[in-house]
Parts: sequence; C-alpha cells; structure tokens
Amino acid sequence: MAKLQWGMIGGGEGSQIGPAHRLGAGLDGLYNFAAGALDHRPDVGIEYGQRLGLGDRAYGSWQDMLEGEKKRDDRIDLVTVATPNATHFEITKAFLEGGFHVLCEKPMTMTVEEGEEIVKVAKATGQICAVNYGYSGYSLVRHMKAMVARGDIGKVRVVNAEFAHGHHADAADADNPRVRWRYDPAQAGVSAQFADCGIHAMHMASFVTGQEVTKLSADIVSCIEVRTLEDDAMVNFRMDGGAVGRLWTSSIAIGRQHGLGIQVFGETGGLRWSQEHPNQLYYMPLNGRLQVIERGEANLSPEADRTSRVTIGHAEGMPLAFANIYTDLAEAIDARKTGREMDAAANLFPKAEDGLRSMSAVVAVAQSGKADGQWVDARPPSLR
Amino acid sequence: MAKLQWGMIGGGEGSQIGPAHRLGAGLDGLYNFAAGALDHRPDVGIEYGQRLGLGDRAYGSWQDMLEGEKKRDDRIDLVTVATPNATHFEITKAFLEGGFHVLCEKPMTMTVEEGEEIVKVAKATGQICAVNYGYSGYSLVRHMKAMVARGDIGKVRVVNAEFAHGHHADAADADNPRVRWRYDPAQAGVSAQFADCGIHAMHMASFVTGQEVTKLSADIVSCIEVRTLEDDAMVNFRMDGGAVGRLWTSSIAIGRQHGLGIQVFGETGGLRWSQEHPNQLYYMPLNGRLQVIERGEANLSPEADRTSRVTIGHAEGMPLAFANIYTDLAEAIDARKTGREMDAAANLFPKAEDGLRSMSAVVAVAQSGKADGQWVDARPPSLR
Amino acid sequence: MAKLQWGMIGGGEGSQIGPAHRLGAGLDGLYNFAAGALDHRPDVGIEYGQRLGLGDRAYGSWQDMLEGEKKRDDRIDLVTVATPNATHFEITKAFLEGGFHVLCEKPMTMTVEEGEEIVKVAKATGQICAVNYGYSGYSLVRHMKAMVARGDIGKVRVVNAEFAHGHHADAADADNPRVRWRYDPAQAGVSAQFADCGIHAMHMASFVTGQEVTKLSADIVSCIEVRTLEDDAMVNFRMDGGAVGRLWTSSIAIGRQHGLGIQVFGETGGLRWSQEHPNQLYYMPLNGRLQVIERGEANLSPEADRTSRVTIGHAEGMPLAFANIYTDLAEAIDARKTGREMDAAANLFPKAEDGLRSMSAVVAVAQSGKADGQWVDARPPSLR
Amino acid sequence: MAKLQWGMIGGGEGSQIGPAHRLGAGLDGLYNFAAGALDHRPDVGIEYGQRLGLGDRAYGSWQDMLEGEKKRDDRIDLVTVATPNATHFEITKAFLEGGFHVLCEKPMTMTVEEGEEIVKVAKATGQICAVNYGYSGYSLVRHMKAMVARGDIGKVRVVNAEFAHGHHADAADADNPRVRWRYDPAQAGVSAQFADCGIHAMHMASFVTGQEVTKLSADIVSCIEVRTLEDDAMVNFRMDGGAVGRLWTSSIAIGRQHGLGIQVFGETGGLRWSQEHPNQLYYMPLNGRLQVIERGEANLSPEADRTSRVTIGHAEGMPLAFANIYTDLAEAIDARKTGREMDAAANLFPKAEDGLRSMSAVVAVAQSGKADGQWVDARPPSLR
Repeated sequence: MAKLQWGMIGGGEGSQIGPAHRLGAGLDGLYNFAAGALDHRPDVGIEYGQRLGLGDRAYGSWQDMLEGEKKRDDRIDLVTVATPNATHFEITKAFLEGGFHVLCEKPMTMTVEEGEEIVKVAKATGQICAVNYGYSGYSLVRHMKAMVARGDIGKVRVVNAEFAHGHHADAADADNPRVRWRYDPAQAGVSAQFADCGIHAMHMASFVTGQEVTKLSADIVSCIEVRTLEDDAMVNFRMDGGAVGRLWTSSIAIGRQHGLGIQVFGETGGLRWSQEHPNQLYYMPLNGRLQVIERGEANLSPEADRTSRVTIGHAEGMPLAFANIYTDLAEAIDARKTGREMDAAANLFPKAEDGLRSMSAVVAVAQSGKADGQWVDARPPSLR
Repeated sequence: MAKLQWGMIGGGEGSQIGPAHRLGAGLDGLYNFAAGALDHRPDVGIEYGQRLGLGDRAYGSWQDMLEGEKKRDDRIDLVTVATPNATHFEITKAFLEGGFHVLCEKPMTMTVEEGEEIVKVAKATGQICAVNYGYSGYSLVRHMKAMVARGDIGKVRVVNAEFAHGHHADAADADNPRVRWRYDPAQAGVSAQFADCGIHAMHMASFVTGQEVTKLSADIVSCIEVRTLEDDAMVNFRMDGGAVGRLWTSSIAIGRQHGLGIQVFGETGGLRWSQEHPNQLYYMPLNGRLQVIERGEANLSPEADRTSRVTIGHAEGMPLAFANIYTDLAEAIDARKTGREMDAAANLFPKAEDGLRSMSAVVAVAQSGKADGQWVDARPPSLR
Repeated sequence: MAKLQWGMIGGGEGSQIGPAHRLGAGLDGLYNFAAGALDHRPDVGIEYGQRLGLGDRAYGSWQDMLEGEKKRDDRIDLVTVATPNATHFEITKAFLEGGFHVLCEKPMTMTVEEGEEIVKVAKATGQICAVNYGYSGYSLVRHMKAMVARGDIGKVRVVNAEFAHGHHADAADADNPRVRWRYDPAQAGVSAQFADCGIHAMHMASFVTGQEVTKLSADIVSCIEVRTLEDDAMVNFRMDGGAVGRLWTSSIAIGRQHGLGIQVFGETGGLRWSQEHPNQLYYMPLNGRLQVIERGEANLSPEADRTSRVTIGHAEGMPLAFANIYTDLAEAIDARKTGREMDAAANLFPKAEDGLRSMSAVVAVAQSGKADGQWVDARPPSLR
Repeated sequence: MAKLQWGMIGGGEGSQIGPAHRLGAGLDGLYNFAAGALDHRPDVGIEYGQRLGLGDRAYGSWQDMLEGEKKRDDRIDLVTVATPNATHFEITKAFLEGGFHVLCEKPMTMTVEEGEEIVKVAKATGQICAVNYGYSGYSLVRHMKAMVARGDIGKVRVVNAEFAHGHHADAADADNPRVRWRYDPAQAGVSAQFADCGIHAMHMASFVTGQEVTKLSADIVSCIEVRTLEDDAMVNFRMDGGAVGRLWTSSIAIGRQHGLGIQVFGETGGLRWSQEHPNQLYYMPLNGRLQVIERGEANLSPEADRTSRVTIGHAEGMPLAFANIYTDLAEAIDARKTGREMDAAANLFPKAEDGLRSMSAVVAVAQSGKADGQWVDARPPSLR
C-alpha cells in the first residue's frame, strides 16, 4: 500500500491528544505526517509544525490549511480534527466539503442538528467521516463483536457497560480550571461525565452487539456541589435488536483508574472485557466453563487478527488500539484510491452516523436525567 | 460463655439450608443443637431429628415444638426458622410470642404488613428477632462498615452494589420446577431476582454505609419469555444520609458465578469488596494508592477482629461468615441471660427492622418496575 | 454414621492450633469432643478442659489421658496430637500402642528414625496414624489429584510448588521469641522454613501427582544474619514417576501473605492452584484455552464433591479444608467399626508414611543445603 | 531533537522481528527509516526495501550497506542488527568498526570470546553498542529499578525471576522445524530455553537490582525426548551486591502464555511485576500493606515518567517498551551529536557488557547443568 499523506488540526505543543494521534497514525508506517494547523495562535502553530518537519505545510489556521491543501496535487488524504470540542463541527464540515476524508475527535458536534448536518454532508460529498471512539480499536473488542455477530453467545439479552474512574473526586480540586470546565454547561454542553466517558461505553455496547440504542432512562447526580453537570450517572437503555442495557459512569469513583469495561450476556453465552487488561477476553458458553481468550491466540476472527500486532502473551495497549482506527482508515482510503474492494474486517471504524447517534444519546441522557428518569427516545430524528 | 440451646424449624434431610445453619451454629461450639421440627411431614422430621441426636426433642411440627419447648426448664435459647418463605411470618411470630429469640431466614415475611407486625411483636415481647442476611457476617464487610463509620472515606457519595449470576440463564431449564417457582408470582410473590439476590446487595449497601434506603427507581425485565417475574433488574436509590445508590442484579449473567459485590465511594476514599474473594478489601484514600487490606491483618477494627478465625493468608469462606451471625447472637443472648452489657462490636446481626425494610424495598422495586421506573418511597410506613 | 468420640492433646487456651482442630472436628457434627489433656500444666489443662465441657475427661497429662481412656467402654475413637513438635513421636507412639487412632500434627517426628518407628508401630497395631497436612483437604486440591490420576493432563513432566510468605522478614523482629525459636537448631531441628512451610508444598506435589520424591538438591540461605537455619530455600527434586520438581519457600518474601501454590505440567495439560484463592483451579488442555474450574461446579470428581460443602460461587476456606481431614478419618474409622468398605474417595488423608517421607525430605534438604546443593537421596531407608 | 537516520539489517518480509523494530523505532517519530539490507537474498531484500520506501538505500547485503552508508554524508545514525543469531557478531563488529552505532538483537554473540571482542571493539571505536533486552524498557520496570536504587526496599535479599510459557509443550510438534532448531545444539548453541527466554529474566534481575550475577547452579531437563537441549531449567544464583537469585524458565508450562515476571525482596520492602499485566507494580513496605503502583501515576521516578506515553489507566504494552530502547538511544546519540550531557534517566538501554554477561551466563548454565548443578562462575573473564 502506498503511503498516505496525513494532516492534523489542533494537537499543538503540550496537548495530550496531539502526540497520541501522531503515534497512532505513525505506528504502522502507513501515513506520512505532511501538513498541520496545530495551534489556534498562527505563529505558534507554524513554528511547532516546522519543528515537526512540516515545512511550508505548517499552517497558521485551519482555513489556511484547507485552502493550501486544496491547491496541491499531493494534497493530504486524511485530516484529523483534534481541536476544542466546539469547533469540531465547523472544521469537519469544511474539510468534507473541500473533498477531504476526515477523522474527527469525539464529540463530532455539540448538537444533534449539527450531527445531522455532518451526516448529510458526508453522504453528499462521498467523503469518509470517521469519529474517534478509539477504544473500539482493541483487538479483543473486535473479536467480541465478531463472536456476537456469528452467534457464539446467541441473541443478546443484557449488555452491562461501565466507565467509572475517580480522577475528579477531589472537592478541593473542583475549581481547578483543568477540571471545572467539564462540569460547566457553558463550556461542556448538556452533559459532563456521560458525554466525556459514558458515551465511550455506550458506543462500545452498540459496537459489540451490533445494535443501536433506541430509548433510555437516566439517573444523574452531581456529587460535588459546585458542579452544575453530572459526575455520576446510571443509564438504562433498550436496543433495536432487543437487548437491554445498563451503563454506569462516574468520575468520583475513588480507587478506579480508568474503568471502561463491558459485559455481554446472550442466550447461549457471556463475554466480559476490561480496558485496563485488554489482552484477555473472558467467555463462558452456556453450561460450560469460563475460558480466557488471549489476544493473539490462534484461530481468532479476521477482525481480531488484523488488529493484533505482537505475539500472544505480549501485552498490547491503548496506543495500538488507537492506531487500528488509522489502519482501518488507510485500508478504506487506499481501496477507494485504487478502485478495489476494501477488506470488510477493516470497515469497523466509527462513522458520522455513530457520532450523530452519540450526540443524540447525550442529549437524551441530559433530558431524562432532568425529568426524574423518564424514558426518552435516544435516536436522532433522521434515524428513527 | 455457657453453651446455648438451639433449635431449628425446617432444614430437613436433603435441604441445602439445613446443613448450612447447623454448620454455622456449630462452628464455634457456642450452641448445642437441642431441638427441631425439621420437616413438614411429622414422621420424616422426627426420624431425621432423632438421627441427628435430638431424641425426644425431635418434633413433628413447629406447633408441637413450640408447646414442647415452652414447658421445659432447659428450653432452647434460640430457634432458627428455615422453612418455605410463606411460613416465616407465622412461625416467627408464634415463637417470639412464646418467649423465644428467633433467627429467621430471609425473607422475614411475604408482605410489608406482616413485616410491620413482626417488628411490633419483637418490640412488645422484648425477644430478639434476627434475619439472616448472612453475607454481612464476613469479617471484611464488618471492617468496611467500621471504616465508613469512623470516617475513613468521608461522607459517602455513591454506593454501587451487585448480585449478578448466570445460573438461571438456560431457557431450556426454565421449566425445571427447581427454577420455575422463583419466577412465578403465585409462589415467589411480587419479585424474583431482586427479592432472591438483589436484596442481599441492598442490605449490604445499608449495612456498610449505615444509611437506609429512602426511595428508588427500578428497571426490571424478564429475559426468558415464560417468566412473569424479573430475572434482571437495575435499581437506582437514595439513602437517608445522602448517598446515591446503584444496584444491578441478574440471574442470566452467564459467566458470573455468584456475583455479590459492593463498591463504596466517599469524599475522601473508596472501598471495593467481592464475595467470591472475601479475604481482600480494596481501599484507596483520596489522592493515594490502591491498598489491599487482608482479613486477619494487624490493627483492623474490633468488628473485623472478632469475626476472623484463622491467621492472615488462610482463606475464610461463606460458612464462617454465616457462623458470625450465630456468634453475634450468642453474645447478645448470653449478655441478656447474665445481665451484662453486650459487646457492641457483636451487635451487627440484621434485625426485624432490616427484614421489614427489605420487604418494603422489594415491594417498591416491583411497583416502580411496573411503572416505567417511577421513583417510589422504599420505606415501610412505620419507618418513614 | 454414629457420632465418634474425639480427644485432643495440647491445643490449650490461647493456642492457635487448638481452636483450629476443634473447629475442624466439629464442623460436620461427626465427632463429639469428649476428652483432652490440653496443657502441659496439669491444673491449667484440667480447668480449661472442664470449661470446654469435658468433665472428668479433662486430664492433667497425656499419660493420665491414655490410662483413663483405655479403661473406658466409650473410649475416644480418635486422638489429635497438637503438642510441641518434639513430643509428637512419644505421644503418637504411645496412643497407637494403646489401641487408639491418631491424627498427629506435622511434623510427625523430629528424626527419620522416629518416623520409621511410627510407621512400624502403626502397621503392627493396625491403628490409623494420620498426619495433618491439612492443605491437601481443599476440594480443588482433591480434584487436581483426581484429574492427574485419571490422565487429564497426561504424564506429569514438571511440578512447581511454592510456599513463600513475608512474615519473618523484619530483622528487628528476629529476636522476638515467637519467631526466633524457628531458626534455632536446638529447638527447630535441622531446618526452619523448609520444615515449617516448604514441606507442605512438597507434600502437595506428591499428593497431587501421586508420585514420591526420590532425590533432591537444595540451595538454602539465611537472609537475616542472626539466624542459623534457613529462611529461604530453593529445592529441585525428582519423583518416582519421572516428574521433575521445583520448590521455592521463603519467609522473607515481603508482600506475599501465605504463598502456598502449585502448578503441574503434563504432556497434555497444565493445572494451577493457589491457597489464597482456593475456590478456583486453572486448567489448560494442550493446544486449548485456559479454563476456570470452580469448586462446587457440576460433574467434578467424587473426591472433589465429597469435600465441598456450599454451593458454587460461595467461597470456602481453610477451616473447611482442615475439616475434610477429620471427615475422611471419620469415614475410615466408621468403616472399620462397622466392618464395611470405606469410601475410596475419603482415603486421602495423609498417613504415617507421608509423615516419614516428609521427615526424610527435611533431612535431605538440610544435608544438600550444607553440601552446596549436592543431590541426595530423599527417601527414608525403609522406602527406598 | 533533529530526526535521526536509521537502518536495519535483517527483518525481511514475513519476519516477526522486522515489523517490531520498525514499529519501535517509528513510534515517537525520532527516526527516519533510511536504509536496509533486509534479506539474505539480495534481490528479495532490495525489492522489499524499495517497497518500504528506502529507494537506492535498499541494499542487497549488509556488506553493500556498510560500504554504501560509509560514503554518505547523511549516513545512518543507528543500525539495527536483526539477522539470524549466528551472524550477529560479524555484522555488529563490522558496523562498529565502520563508525556506526549499533542496536543488536539478542544474543549479541554465540560465544563468550566473541562477546569479549565486541566489548573491546565498542570501547576502542567509541561507538554505542546496545543489545535488545527490550522488556527492560517497560515504564514500571524502570520504576522498580529506580525504587531499588533509591533504597525504597532496602538491601536486596532475594530476587525471584521467571520466564515460563507452554508454547513448546506439544510433543507432536517437536519436529516442526519452527520449533526443532531451538533445541538443536548445531543451530542454537549450548542452551535452548534458558538462552531464549531465561536470559531475559536474568537480565531483568540484574537490571532491577543493579547487581551482577557472579555464580550460578543450574538444574536443566529436556521434557520431550527428542530434544538435546533443555526445555525447562531452574537456576540459582548469587549477585555481587549480596542478593540471592532464583530463576525458573520453561517452554512446556501449559497454561502459561508468556510468563516473564519478577519479584524482588529487600530488607524493608518487596516488589512484584509481571509482563502480561505490565501497567501495575505491586509494592509492600515492611510491616505495611500491599499497594498497587499504576503506570502513569503522579510522582513516580523520572525513569518511569520518560518511558510512559499515555495517561494512567490506559494500558501500554510491549511495543512501547520496545520503543523505549529506541528512545533512549535517540537521546544518547543526539547528545553525542550535539555535544551535550545526555539525560541520565535515558542511559538505561542494555549495552555490550550486558550482552557479554548474558552470553557468559548462558555458557555457565549449560556447564552447571551438565555437572549436576555444580556452582560455576557466571562472569566473563574480563569482568571477574
């Protein structure tokens, strides 16, 4: 596969997300980091981009980058949008319309309406619009999805997902700006912990079961008084294939480090996986024994095999899961460029529809949470 | 302490609960198994009782036993009621009124009204009425309670309890009489999985936090079609000390064996414990590191010390937790008999009020579950 | 089964071992605690025995007890010897010769010669002489043995056993009399940590594989200077069925609580078990997946079933393992008394030959350890 | 830091080691993959190299590459040698003498004499010669080393290391060429499992304790008959700082996947770490409680911080450990190029002396193993 040209907006010096994307994109050598508008301060962004080897493709703004790249024959094949949340919509839309494939950080938009708009634009332009629910890139998460799809656990009855950590539990730290904005509706929107973390668990529930959330009921609380938005939420939901969902998310769960995990219970088997120990998947067939499926073991699914890089027993971690989103996208983009069928096992990266559904679920959680847990439709209008 | 005389109603040959109680009562040598009405078939019960060494105190019915024991100078000090659920109320009431201390298997009654009645009778007669939420007997559960009480984790914000197993997940087995009755309202009452298992988790949440449940919202489902009552439930609740509760219970969670566990998150620390590995308690102080508290380690609380029997590193299990309820009761009874203060650290066995509250919570879960998760008062009328 | 009469020597007030034995013997209601010489101080022992309900069968010395019991028609069926190590030989021998079955605490004797003598006396008198390697009583240890015996893992290649804790790691505590005597040859004999703990691991290796140790090589060290005897030892060994053994034992392994565990690797499978979490057994068939065998699961071996008391998912612990030795012995004694075949699955309690072999292994470890790890015969002369 | 130019010898298409190195070197964007002689078949190597974008720096042989690169102004800064073991010595020597820094796969050489030669050449030329004991790159392994060095656990008493897997346990597979060569002295040298895996555990014991192995005693066996070399070995050793070592390695341990782990016990604390779950380090201070140190937590050592890439709770795995060796080397090389002091926390990559010591230990294990475990000097002649 010929190397693809890749660009990035946001992710400037000192950010966490910038290095993570560069690492993910660079890992398999499929992309050449070619262009970037890395900071909202033009000078700073250009200087940093040049230090990273971007030369005259280190731009001062995303608008400049869009114009600059459009003119080039060797224009970038994919742009990653890793700017503050409120700007995702505008930039993603502009680049899709400019004829670029986009990988947008989550959340894709701040409103359902914007989400609908992105889905429309992506459809109209024919460009790929991916959204970075990166935890879905883990090899054994892919394998869970494949097991469910091929019927290993029968029809799914209940899915129980969690994303509970304790890193915002310190009341004395609640006014720290690094933490405070997340619980301030003016900056974070209608939801804090669910939108920030819980949505990853909900996306994973959909991803693994192959079902979409239809309606939900939420119980939300702010354990620390100064917070307007929730720091702990329990969400019950129903899915379009009949599955029942339970999802707990918290940022005040002292003693939990990351806490993303999922359990799926079907008619003929159960599965359990946790992000903190991602190289083992626990599987019990009905009336059988708990088995430990190891990443990298022989005879897993093609979906697991193509997202596993080192031999069994050697831990793989989050950066490689993240990289799998890029690897999927490279396969999708290269297939388009060369006019071939893409590997179906790579067509698992989250898409604009997932970004839209997530936004809709966030709004639904906020709405239900305010209404004493009333059940509300979780689907975006266009996908009801 | 002089040996106490102990009797049992129910728990006949082939039952699971009978040996468990005899083991629990016998473990520390505090009780002499002296009387019993072990089977609803008089001949069978007498014959079995005699084989167990009860002689002429092997009775044919609980009524005979009540009359027989009342006449004796060496009458039993404590009677355990381990008969089918629907008979608990009548027998417990009769023995309390007869002047006996009672340990009743859960559920104490089938209705809230009966529960209120038992509480009244216990108060009026002055007899001890204990209810067997046996998991609260574990040494490290006692220690959790002590840690919370002395402020080690600050004010409790969220408690997350679970009791999820997969032993009723086989649809082909749903008609098996051993399983079916549990999901049949005619036999089981208003709730199945919550009343059977979930209530243990809810009792533990109250026990550990020292707070009572005030209101709750439940989402209940029957994953197997032939079932009328729920086999999976999610319950959100609030407690009178301000804690928020989440409680998941399931009997279709394939891959889970027992699945009782609790996490408690306070302002300055978090705690985590699981019944399947009961000799470790995970504790993290705010901004500190996760620590492993071992049963039997030096300098635990008096509540933990008195309920721990073997040295650190040697596993203790459920029968010893169970025995602790008996050991507590022995202390309480002996203190009364000898006119001394009882050891406060032993006064932790669940009481009639707990049985009443549990019954009220079961009814509330059923009611909320039928009303789309509407929040309902979980307290019994007399304790509002 | 009619209740057996049981007596105890040693295990006086304040000892750890006394309550453990009384709990073990009492657990299943198979024994009546009828007689005892509980303390080397006659008055103290008699007073304590009377408090425990022994009446005039509370004796002032083991000699008095031997004479007293010999004269009775209802003499004890089994005596437990739980006195200081140096007295085991004399007492055990005397009781066997007096016509009593004996359960002797480990070590059975202080020398190989004494061990040989006990084996001879047991054979000559026909009495049962059991030795308390109590960890072999765990249900899943029994199941491991059954799996190996029926060929589930093929011919055993390597067994790796450990018993490593950190409770004697504090140099400042080394002079504490409670610790010091264990490392003093005058009191402890030729070996400290291996004789105290390692031998349990070695017994378990033999028990599980059904093979006996033939020769061994030991590397022993005293990490704390004031100690004459070893606090850390590595022992390599060979077994009579061809298995290779590795055994590590330590008392300075800070961070390990108990640390008894075993791994068995055969031609077609592997097994792993740990005393601190005794209700799970990890099994991998060749070219298969790791499976978790749960105590109490359906279709285990008869050896596991008869030593399992509570349902799956409810932890069982050390006191129940310990009790299984008593339960085995009750079956063996009752079978003799009633002239029937005993249940073969109960004939697993350690016997005088095991006590002898252990003593011989202890001496061999000490000898090899002093000779730079030279390989030495580990078998007692009579069993070569 | 300016990007370094990197080349590779070996690691052709279909190899496992090639992608692993490219991933490791590429991860942080510090290296430009500029040159390679990737296959012993010139045509194949050139074609593959060109496909990977090397252009005319895709060479047909390492000799061509050496000549070609020597002539260039933009010659490579570092060459990785990932060819078959028997060729490591010759190539490494030639490149060092040619003025290149080298990262050599383990084993650095096939004999101690060759190892001595490489050390001499490295010293004489002043070039960096690193050896890829990649597991030492894990962040928490670095932190263990730092904790020991700063005295957190006091003087080390015992280190217990393991590398035991079950991937060569199938006798039916023993003749598979992929497996067979490893146990054939003609191809593998004097040792199989110890040289292949055990040596990683021994390197880690030295790395973490900061002590070198002085003498050792080995018990080696071939569990599968057709094998000449060992598939299971137990090695006891002594270190120059007084530590006692135990090291078990096996390739027939069915049920173990990777099995590299280490425990270090000092006078005032203990540490435990396992490669399969590398993001947690278990630490117990003397008379304290077991604590879980998480990779990425605040206030770890500089050595841990600089080798940790993603936030706490997000798993990192082996490829990132591996990459740390490259990152260390980049720091070392850049410091030389720019004439500055290198970051001391980066100076932890294994060096030629480590390669030499390892070779000497392998020979010592083979020698002791053949001599019934006789203690032999493990040090290379030049380092005694």
